Amino acid sequence: MLEAGADTFAGAIPTILKVNSANALLPDEMPKHQAITASVDDALRLGCAAIGFTIYPGSSASLEMFEEVAAMRAEAAARGLATVIWSYPRGETLSKDGETAMDVTAYAAQIAALLGAHIIKIKLCTDHLEQKEAKKVFQDKSIAIATQADRVAECVRSAFNGRRIMVFSGGAAKGENAVFDDARAIRDGGGNGSIIGRNSFQRKREDALAMLAKLVEIYKGRG
Amino acid sequence: MLEAGADTFAGAIPTILKVNSANALLPDEMPKHQAITASVDDALRLGCAAIGFTIYPGSSASLEMFEEVAAMRAEAAARGLATVIWSYPRGETLSKDGETAMDVTAYAAQIAALLGAHIIKIKLCTDHLEQKEAKKVFQDKSIAIATQADRVAECVRSAFNGRRIMVFSGGAAKGENAVFDDARAIRDGGGNGSIIGRNSFQRKREDALAMLAKLVEIYKGRG
Amino acid sequence: MLEAGADTFAGAIPTILKVNSANALLPDEMPKHQAITASVDDALRLGCAAIGFTIYPGSSASLEMFEEVAAMRAEAAARGLATVIWSYPRGETLSKDGETAMDVTAYAAQIAALLGAHIIKIKLCTDHLEQKEAKKVFQDKSIAIATQADRVAECVRSAFNGRRIMVFSGGAAKGENAVFDDARAIRDGGGNGSIIGRNSFQRKREDALAMLAKLVEIYKGRG
Amino acid sequence: MLEAGADTFAGAIPTILKVNSANALLPDEMPKHQAITASVDDALRLGCAAIGFTIYPGSSASLEMFEEVAAMRAEAAARGLATVIWSYPRGETLSKDGETAMDVTAYAAQIAALLGAHIIKIKLCTDHLEQKEAKKVFQDKSIAIATQADRVAECVRSAFNGRRIMVFSGGAAKGENAVFDDARAIRDGGGNGSIIGRNSFQRKREDALAMLAKLVEIYKGRG
Amino acid sequence: MLEAGADTFAGAIPTILKVNSANALLPDEMPKHQAITASVDDALRLGCAAIGFTIYPGSSASLEMFEEVAAMRAEAAARGLATVIWSYPRGETLSKDGETAMDVTAYAAQIAALLGAHIIKIKLCTDHLEQKEAKKVFQDKSIAIATQADRVAECVRSAFNGRRIMVFSGGAAKGENAVFDDARAIRDGGGNGSIIGRNSFQRKREDALAMLAKLVEIYKGRG
Repeated sequence: MLEAGADTFAGAIPTILKVNSANALLPDEMPKHQAITASVDDALRLGCAAIGFTIYPGSSASLEMFEEVAAMRAEAAARGLATVIWSYPRGETLSKDGETAMDVTAYAAQIAALLGAHIIKIKLCTDHLEQKEAKKVFQDKSIAIATQADRVAECVRSAFNGRRIMVFSGGAAKGENAVFDDARAIRDGGGNGSIIGRNSFQRKREDALAMLAKLVEIYKGRG
Repeated sequence: MLEAGADTFAGAIPTILKVNSANALLPDEMPKHQAITASVDDALRLGCAAIGFTIYPGSSASLEMFEEVAAMRAEAAARGLATVIWSYPRGETLSKDGETAMDVTAYAAQIAALLGAHIIKIKLCTDHLEQKEAKKVFQDKSIAIATQADRVAECVRSAFNGRRIMVFSGGAAKGENAVFDDARAIRDGGGNGSIIGRNSFQRKREDALAMLAKLVEIYKGRG
Repeated sequence: MLEAGADTFAGAIPTILKVNSANALLPDEMPKHQAITASVDDALRLGCAAIGFTIYPGSSASLEMFEEVAAMRAEAAARGLATVIWSYPRGETLSKDGETAMDVTAYAAQIAALLGAHIIKIKLCTDHLEQKEAKKVFQDKSIAIATQADRVAECVRSAFNGRRIMVFSGGAAKGENAVFDDARAIRDGGGNGSIIGRNSFQRKREDALAMLAKLVEIYKGRG
Repeated sequence: MLEAGADTFAGAIPTILKVNSANALLPDEMPKHQAITASVDDALRLGCAAIGFTIYPGSSASLEMFEEVAAMRAEAAARGLATVIWSYPRGETLSKDGETAMDVTAYAAQIAALLGAHIIKIKLCTDHLEQKEAKKVFQDKSIAIATQADRVAECVRSAFNGRRIMVFSGGAAKGENAVFDDARAIRDGGGNGSIIGRNSFQRKREDALAMLAKLVEIYKGRG
Repeated sequence: MLEAGADTFAGAIPTILKVNSANALLPDEMPKHQAITASVDDALRLGCAAIGFTIYPGSSASLEMFEEVAAMRAEAAARGLATVIWSYPRGETLSKDGETAMDVTAYAAQIAALLGAHIIKIKLCTDHLEQKEAKKVFQDKSIAIATQADRVAECVRSAFNGRRIMVFSGGAAKGENAVFDDARAIRDGGGNGSIIGRNSFQRKREDALAMLAKLVEIYKGRG
């Protein structure tokens, strides 16, 4: 898809080429996985600043995904491109609550950091604690997780104690105020940005631009 | 098979070398898949204009097929050949109705576009909506799908908003009038052509030539 | 095994190096398959005229076998060697009758032709029709399959309408007269030869030579 | 993670780059395995002295892990780096007791030696004997395994009769005295060191340094 | 392990580098298989005369093992090294009796010969006939299999009619006289040697040397 507009935007905004892709028609019982559909060569040819890759740490296909991104990240870095890793802990062992649990999300962020991500993208999480051993530690050490900002801070700490850029997505389309509250929590917790997709593309152009402008103000500490 | 006639037709008509092939004797319970049986080198050697590749987005083998065509498409493009992708959503999760549903077919077209197809080949579809989430959107937004031309237009939109060449096949052998009606719908919906196979090869030569001439007239707006 | 006698026979008779090999001790429930045990390099080194490869179109391993032979055939052709494909439709979906059915055998011949075989080797078949759709066509078009020669002709037609060399094996050891009748049917149907293995090796040398001489006469139209 | 501090510590202490990595969110029913997430190139670039690799001899993925480490070890050795193998006998056939059994642990050490490890890392084991045939031999030959030092000596013998460096981990966090007793047993049995992780990182800095100093004294025979 | 002593023995005795390795902790229900743990490069570097490889013809992993050894054998031969194939017919279809049956063992020897072995290593077998079709042939042709020497001769015939070196192992540790009787049978049947492992290593040095000296005398026809 970038090919369709690369010559319009080249140099104007930094682009990320997503190098693996999902398929919504896959049978549910298959392990969560994606196909590699682009290369570092493509990213260079299209003038991108980075490659993007999804991993599913809860999936039985996860080890293969880790090997794929480790190799592509090394090639990208050798050629001057950064790597953004989307770390979504879907998989056979995780309940729906588990996918957005505090401990599982923080672990997903750490995995992405260990895999060499320059930018880590994860979901905002809840205060639910999924793994028994992790629950014990959070309780024994009284780690603060009551507010969204607390939980963002814990995720940021989980990626080399804040040494990596971390951005957060919130999932389903929502009203503007919810998007702004998320941004404040991310900012207050030490995160670096909000991932916005449907929430801008599915708004009218002028409404979307206004919302994005307000988000920038929030991140600048003015809102 | 092209080798048998390549020297007769070379330069006279553009040919497409299909680089993967099906096998009708495969056990039914196997995921739908095809074997890679030719290369970009073969296509060049035979003087072809493009390579052709089938993908089955509903199959558990789909991610592997996506990776195969992404790689071959890159090699073909680097050597001056276009890529035609046949996108047939067969697979374990789809009912017979689902295979030709509006939303599934449009998604199959989008996948082919994202995989880099220069020409996309899909089946004409019905007004059946298979995926719950998609059904909701089609209804909420009142997207027109009542006529064949409406549905062709929706598929064309699904491939980068009309930026890709799209051709349609209609499946089983049928009477001439049905073939002509299909062509008018494709033309009116913004599609670029009809795929005709058995409907011409299994007719007598003069009947087939007459039918093809009539189809050309339809596409030129004269019929 | 060719290595044991290559220097005795080199140049005297053309040899074919079989590059994949079966294993009779494989568990029955495994998909029918063979191992690649020799290369095009070996064939050249041993002074062979061709490589030989078995495919099992009815097996769930068939797509992999097709990819293997397509690649080896390309390499052999690039280096001056022909490819002989043994096309035996064994597999999980085929009944014992299905393995030697008319329609299945003709399809197996076509697959071998499409895979690039210069010489196709299949089994003589029966007049049994296995696939429902094929049965309908044979009946509607009144295709002649009553005699062995009729069926040989249908198989020859299935490989690019006679453009490929086709040889037939008859399976289990049998009496001489049966071998001669098979040869006449193959000759009359337009086939190019009989595959004889055990029927000569398990006879006394002089009896085998006499039988082979008689077969040559039959193929020359004199018997 | 080494990248975060490589320039601080380079040359000051020898580092080992762990080239495969586990994932705690893998479904339990999957064979124990790890993903290759770094290369010998990475180890050289980061100024490391060795690469580290985990194998799980009790897992159905073990043969693949053995092939991976054999190949990486050869590359590392060719480029001046040593190989440390963590040999943890987890897997489908082993009971929890079996994982730390005397015979299983000694076998895990031997496997690591045969795979080319310069340094072998295993767990301290119990006097439990898991495999029937091994139990018979230990009993018939009256091999001493009653004390921890006896068992360490048996493991050291199992790696080319003491020709390889062997270090031991003790698992879960424990009190200081237990750590010191382990060290004395390792020293007395002919082992080369203790692996300490959580037992130092999860202590206050000054307590950890004091504990490590005392361990050094123990290994020097003074404690 | 050869690395530990290579410089002591180099040039003194010919050594064989075993390039694949088993793992006794594999779950029983896994197909019998081994990991490739060394290369032809390693064999050359260690001054070996040959590489050694195990195949399990009764295993569902057998085709993969055949492909592996065929490739390594070609590389070894191109670089001046011979190949020794251990052919042990373990696998899912064979009963314990089947593993040492006459017909199965002879077939295992033939497979090793066809795979290019210069030296074939198999187990001494019993007069049990496992495969129905083979049993019929042995009986119809009255092939002699009553004595151990008869059976050795049948195996030697099965490897290109005696054109390959064949050595035999006898399995479990046994008393000296049994070892000598085996050697006489192997010699009388046309075999080339006995494989001795535990029967010498687990004896006292002087007893082992005496036993080996006596075996040499037997093979020289003097015992």
